[in-house]
Amino acid sequence: MSTLEAPEDPHFEENNTPRWKKIKDALEAQEIEIIQKILGEATVDDQRRIISRLSLDEREQLCKLLPIEETAQLFEHLIEEQATELLEEMPADVAADVIEELPADLSGDLLREIDEKNSTAILAEIDDSEESAELLERSKFAWDCAGGLMSDRVVSFPETTTVQEVLTDLGEHSEDYSDADVQYFYVVDSGQKLTGVLALRTLVLSKRNTAISDLMIQDPMSVSVDATLEELEDFFEEKNYLGFPVVDDQGKLRGLISRGDLNEALSDRQTEGYLKSSGIVGGEELRSMPLKDRCLRRLAWLGPNILLNLLAASVIAAHEETLQAVIALAIFLPMVSDMSGCSGNQAVAVSIRELTLGVIQPRDYMRVLFKEGLLGINNGIVLGIVLGVIAAIWKDSVYLGVVVGSALALNTILSVLLGGLIPLALKKLKVDPALASSPILTTCTDMCGFFLVLSVASLFLTQLT
Amino acid sequence: MSTLEAPEDPHFEENNTPRWKKIKDALEAQEIEIIQKILGEATVDDQRRIISRLSLDEREQLCKLLPIEETAQLFEHLIEEQATELLEEMPADVAADVIEELPADLSGDLLREIDEKNSTAILAEIDDSEESAELLERSKFAWDCAGGLMSDRVVSFPETTTVQEVLTDLGEHSEDYSDADVQYFYVVDSGQKLTGVLALRTLVLSKRNTAISDLMIQDPMSVSVDATLEELEDFFEEKNYLGFPVVDDQGKLRGLISRGDLNEALSDRQTEGYLKSSGIVGGEELRSMPLKDRCLRRLAWLGPNILLNLLAASVIAAHEETLQAVIALAIFLPMVSDMSGCSGNQAVAVSIRELTLGVIQPRDYMRVLFKEGLLGINNGIVLGIVLGVIAAIWKDSVYLGVVVGSALALNTILSVLLGGLIPLALKKLKVDPALASSPILTTCTDMCGFFLVLSVASLFLTQLT
Repeated sequence: MSTLEAPEDPHFEENNTPRWKKIKDALEAQEIEIIQKILGEATVDDQRRIISRLSLDEREQLCKLLPIEETAQLFEHLIEEQATELLEEMPADVAADVIEELPADLSGDLLREIDEKNSTAILAEIDDSEESAELLERSKFAWDCAGGLMSDRVVSFPETTTVQEVLTDLGEHSEDYSDADVQYFYVVDSGQKLTGVLALRTLVLSKRNTAISDLMIQDPMSVSVDATLEELEDFFEEKNYLGFPVVDDQGKLRGLISRGDLNEALSDRQTEGYLKSSGIVGGEELRSMPLKDRCLRRLAWLGPNILLNLLAASVIAAHEETLQAVIALAIFLPMVSDMSGCSGNQAVAVSIRELTLGVIQPRDYMRVLFKEGLLGINNGIVLGIVLGVIAAIWKDSVYLGVVVGSALALNTILSVLLGGLIPLALKKLKVDPALASSPILTTCTDMCGFFLVLSVASLFLTQLT
Repeated sequence: MSTLEAPEDPHFEENNTPRWKKIKDALEAQEIEIIQKILGEATVDDQRRIISRLSLDEREQLCKLLPIEETAQLFEHLIEEQATELLEEMPADVAADVIEELPADLSGDLLREIDEKNSTAILAEIDDSEESAELLERSKFAWDCAGGLMSDRVVSFPETTTVQEVLTDLGEHSEDYSDADVQYFYVVDSGQKLTGVLALRTLVLSKRNTAISDLMIQDPMSVSVDATLEELEDFFEEKNYLGFPVVDDQGKLRGLISRGDLNEALSDRQTEGYLKSSGIVGGEELRSMPLKDRCLRRLAWLGPNILLNLLAASVIAAHEETLQAVIALAIFLPMVSDMSGCSGNQAVAVSIRELTLGVIQPRDYMRVLFKEGLLGINNGIVLGIVLGVIAAIWKDSVYLGVVVGSALALNTILSVLLGGLIPLALKKLKVDPALASSPILTTCTDMCGFFLVLSVASLFLTQLT
């Protein structure tokens, strides 16, 4: 099988042996220093590429050889699906060590994605029962709500702390705060409930023996652990802050969510939408995954597509006689359905974008109908004339041109209307527009396209033959 | 035309008149308080929806009536295309006032997007010549490089400043720093060159009469104004910081780029990719734009598509006799090309994602060929058998089943291979894979699908008729 592997361009590697091959060799020889050197010098992209070239066994061995901190660092750079795969392969105690080293949002994501059996085993290996309970709770939040996105790097102090105590604490534990945002401190009461917020700036400019409860801004704005992406987006747009504290339903401070966290989640959702609209359900295929999983996942989307295609094909079957009489129509059937499908997909994309941006809502269907109707009539006529003229000249038949051109014009109008409306209807029905819009649209435009060409043709049958 | 407007659901509005209608009325009556009240109570999404319902004239009037600060605030909430349209409609002096109120990254984006004639006129109206030059320079950066993404809310002090002076300045000008990230200060020499960075934390815990040059970390990490999205992504992934100073080629401090800025840009690029792959070129259509522009933009993508479709149709035309002899084939022609097109598009989506994530590079074509080949053989055989059995039963002909099934199997294999490779080839040729992959793939799979069905059929012509 090795001859089937990609030849690597030597200019991109330090010498002629690609780095993933060197790592494979070093793994076999257990030469940990070589591996550390290669990984240490590799960019994040290179690390991802190297990992995806290793077999599952090799990856497992790699994690065993590397010190826990370096494995954790590697995990932070990997794509989530790669990290999940790897975590499932590792012995539970090693996995637990890695999980403890990771930032809370990442460990929560990973524990959520792996098998429940695995996550239970990993959590059982975590010595600190409080941390284990925290992780379990965290992994139960959906990835796309505030609870799933928040970081636990939030700095809070009890109300009774003085300014001097805070400053001393910061100085003494500066290492613990190295990755926390200390521009704002949160203030909590004895029950861990969020009661105030305090800017570091204010603290710095205040008398050292003041209690922070006298300086804090009371009842600060916060978001609930359950807040959805849409709610968070609105909240961040309206209030111009970099981050907000996240509280649970008892008002307890649970974490901090930043604009960066939110933007990252929005970007993930976009990617997922794009993949779904191309028939990659779940949005998580990488070519390093097992072949069986990849085949089955893709077939799961293609299967229903066969049925939809049969539905469309049955329209042609019902008009076989017309087709037999004017065989030239068979040339234009796929063209008419494909061209209008493209027009309709443009309308789908605009609707999905406008829905995402909040410019339209499902109840705005009359506006979409009106706006797409005008565009459809215009583009339908233009495209119909172009294809009609081509057909008439090609097959030297004005009637054929009229049949094909008018069918394309009508089908384009219909297709942009449907394309504009289907995402709204799906959103209303709480079905994901990115996943279902395109197959539904294509089936409709195929059926209508075939029907229009063949039924208009049957009207002109004497002139066409 | 008013009867064509969308009926609004009364439950969503305060009373039966939708808000955008109320604003239209208030604009006519010049009742500014009503407008301020409605906009003040509206969410960001609602503001976007209301603005997209107003005509250009009405929007212009709205901006004239609102105080400059409120117009600027509205601009921050609008979608970029809405804001650009609006800016082009406003008198240059009003537009200049608005631009001055906006954060630098947004004003830079807007000035870049509007006509050069307009932007020159607006810049000429800005009194402060230094600010005007800064804005001009800024608008010349591409949106997706560090210079286009950076914020100017960076806090810097000359090297000779003492700790006490910094603290005093912070206290006295706290309002100016309200939207700046003061967790880190940057230190510059007399020529504005970046020489160091200093954490607020360090400052707070230091003797008040120390010069900050004695406390700062020298030669801090920084990114160049020209750094691309890919470079920034790598940089942020490797160094675990929330933000970096941006410097020009002379080493002068120009701004600050945060992880949030980067993530937002990555999200924008994702959306653009999705829209492009659906044939919305430029990624900027909103239904509030003029009909003519929308039609022309969509046709610009559909036009070349007609040619590609004709190419595919010519394959059918070349086999008209086979088709005439076995008319049932016409039913399965669109099915075979469509089904394999779907399979190929799945591979396109996975390749584009892996390219974006950095898991593969254009030179990894052998890996893609191998991984997609295995999957294609598997899924091709499954789908071929399914469609073959359906065809054989439907038309009561084993030979027809064999022809259709084997054509689909072969075309699926070909299509996933092409789908996997086309994005790599386009990336190598520096063509955007999101824009061109799908049309090229579809044309190829249509042509091959038609050819395979019809040429395999011509081999079995006696058995089929």
